[in-house]
Amino acid sequence: MGLNVKLPLGYSFVGHTAGIKESGKPDLALVASDRSAACVGMFTTNRVCAAPVQICRQRLPSTSVRGLVINSGNANACTGDRGLRDAEAMTAALAKAISCETHAVLVASTGVIGRPLAIDAIVAGIHSAAGHLGSTANAFDAATNAILTTDTRAKVAGREIRIGKQSARILGFAKGAAMIGPNMATMLAFVLTDAAATVGELQPILKRAVDRSFHCIGVEGHTSTNDTVLLVANGASGSIVSDGLAQFEEAVEQVCIELARAIVADAEGASKFIALKVTGCRSDADARQIAKAIAESALAKAAFFGNDPNWGRICSAAGYAGVAFDEKDMSLKVNGTVLYERGQPTAFDPKRESDRMKANREVDVELTFSLGTGHCTFWTCDLTTDYVRLNADYTT
Amino acid sequence: MGLNVKLPLGYSFVGHTAGIKESGKPDLALVASDRSAACVGMFTTNRVCAAPVQICRQRLPSTSVRGLVINSGNANACTGDRGLRDAEAMTAALAKAISCETHAVLVASTGVIGRPLAIDAIVAGIHSAAGHLGSTANAFDAATNAILTTDTRAKVAGREIRIGKQSARILGFAKGAAMIGPNMATMLAFVLTDAAATVGELQPILKRAVDRSFHCIGVEGHTSTNDTVLLVANGASGSIVSDGLAQFEEAVEQVCIELARAIVADAEGASKFIALKVTGCRSDADARQIAKAIAESALAKAAFFGNDPNWGRICSAAGYAGVAFDEKDMSLKVNGTVLYERGQPTAFDPKRESDRMKANREVDVELTFSLGTGHCTFWTCDLTTDYVRLNADYTT
Repeated sequence: MGLNVKLPLGYSFVGHTAGIKESGKPDLALVASDRSAACVGMFTTNRVCAAPVQICRQRLPSTSVRGLVINSGNANACTGDRGLRDAEAMTAALAKAISCETHAVLVASTGVIGRPLAIDAIVAGIHSAAGHLGSTANAFDAATNAILTTDTRAKVAGREIRIGKQSARILGFAKGAAMIGPNMATMLAFVLTDAAATVGELQPILKRAVDRSFHCIGVEGHTSTNDTVLLVANGASGSIVSDGLAQFEEAVEQVCIELARAIVADAEGASKFIALKVTGCRSDADARQIAKAIAESALAKAAFFGNDPNWGRICSAAGYAGVAFDEKDMSLKVNGTVLYERGQPTAFDPKRESDRMKANREVDVELTFSLGTGHCTFWTCDLTTDYVRLNADYTT
Repeated sequence: MGLNVKLPLGYSFVGHTAGIKESGKPDLALVASDRSAACVGMFTTNRVCAAPVQICRQRLPSTSVRGLVINSGNANACTGDRGLRDAEAMTAALAKAISCETHAVLVASTGVIGRPLAIDAIVAGIHSAAGHLGSTANAFDAATNAILTTDTRAKVAGREIRIGKQSARILGFAKGAAMIGPNMATMLAFVLTDAAATVGELQPILKRAVDRSFHCIGVEGHTSTNDTVLLVANGASGSIVSDGLAQFEEAVEQVCIELARAIVADAEGASKFIALKVTGCRSDADARQIAKAIAESALAKAAFFGNDPNWGRICSAAGYAGVAFDEKDMSLKVNGTVLYERGQPTAFDPKRESDRMKANREVDVELTFSLGTGHCTFWTCDLTTDYVRLNADYTT
């Protein structure tokens, strides 16, 4: 856990090894709230969506959430009716252990798809782990580690804010969209607060935060079957979100952005972290669409890998994003140097720009239009030979 | 030129080295028609579009086309007003050489973007080359070679059909969408016939043929600034398209599909040729959208490179294509083996399927839905470490 991260009140955590992963690494995380919490969620838009996502969709929004059960190593996706029964059984097991209704528990899974869960081992693991739920930094750390798959490190972000005379904590943890290795790219994030909030307050806050964070990252555009983001508010601190809605929303957004950036920074096979700032568009949605086209262009991303200041690939990806503009509306800076100005490349020194790219893991791309005030910051990584190698052969 | 390919009557060709390419390879092709031809075109949808595309858009459709001038080595894109003047000058030069109006000549360019054309050398080249226009197979071959960039071979396809008592020839040549090396992925294709047709007949024929051919290939989804497809009908054979519209349309479509497949097969850095057949959708457009999502999924394409029968990546790419369906509507075959059936993976032998993939350069992917009769065949290639390496560094 980072230095500035404090545990929100009223939550307890545990990480456990239930035996789902062949590696013997931790693969089960539980979170419990000592009182009923308001909870909202956002999920994958993939038509092929995993059983735990279907269960969460049925149960949310809710004002009576008491627990989360999360497993790694198996995504419980493409598993038919059995998958639904297994996901339900996971929530029932935690509900029994913490004495609440089954529908007060939510579930998320990540890992390989198309294989049935070892449900007996998982249910036994839930019962055993629940006895060790704790409100310590160690317990939290164990939970954040148990949800990882190909991630090389846990992703945690937190804020403490004042709302009136009270303080409130917002704490998030996530696993990454590495999209490689034995996983289907699942992105999971859980944001917990000890402030009190209504579902009506939480829903738009989560939507805006996700729009500016997890919806603004792309490793390669492949939407997972299991993506899940939950925002849980249990009110244990006595602070009330409506007394400081703006600060609370800002803090949730910052936590989500920090987690999203951490996911991109840890994308396996990546050698560059690329921040795409698109400004001056007719709308934020236009800016996001342009950023996304660049972030998903294999050509642009291969050029970043090669430290190639290739304005043509960036500008032409913008050109096919489906947003109307003229070439002379567009200018481009990479690492502060203007490479393209109102429709034409400048006389920059390619060697110098390439050397500057080589010297930094981060690349700043600023694409400016003269059409309005719409803007977006999007984070992505490069396309590397390692990425292809790591993804070329996994099931056999 | 292939065995079954006959030159259409009334056209002459030449390939030339104007000195645009540093390699000293041929870089200028001219086509002339001995009489006014009807011509229609389809072009890149990229907002950043090259000067020659803008000139063609102004002049088409036309009933009085006499010549085409095509250069490789420089795309004349992102070159501002000067680019437009240069493209115009190219058409004026050929018009002068073959004694027609400037607006009766069309132009296409491919190569690096953002650099001004060496227009004096090109105009001199046009004047010099026009003196060698000829109606021989050798002249045609020289023209088909002069438009290439990173292509390893010329792409040619032809048909001869009977229309009533007359015969008509349809001959196409193209350059590829390799999207790698020193190019911006330009796809150029020129389809010439000696049948007579009106612009009103040609327009829908070309649109349908392109929808089923060049719009059904994807190397990595990056739309070029210069993509151009022209269909030219000069009537020199005396045959009249309206006497056999269906045969003519079929022949144009077959020529376009053959050229499109040749482009994918020659994509640099690719090791697999993948045919995606999507059937049983509510519409052809839905089927195409699903095929395109798979063809543009870096994860799915890396799995093909690794000979990995990874049904999960194919099915989940279908799932985020934006087409509504349930998992149980979908089944998948790879090389004839059912890997996934109505929502769940089958108990196939991954090792055996991987070995079968290894043994063939072609992979047949059949994704079947139970929603209607909409279908699409889409051709793509795999994502390889060579692709990334070749694209990582080119301008510096």
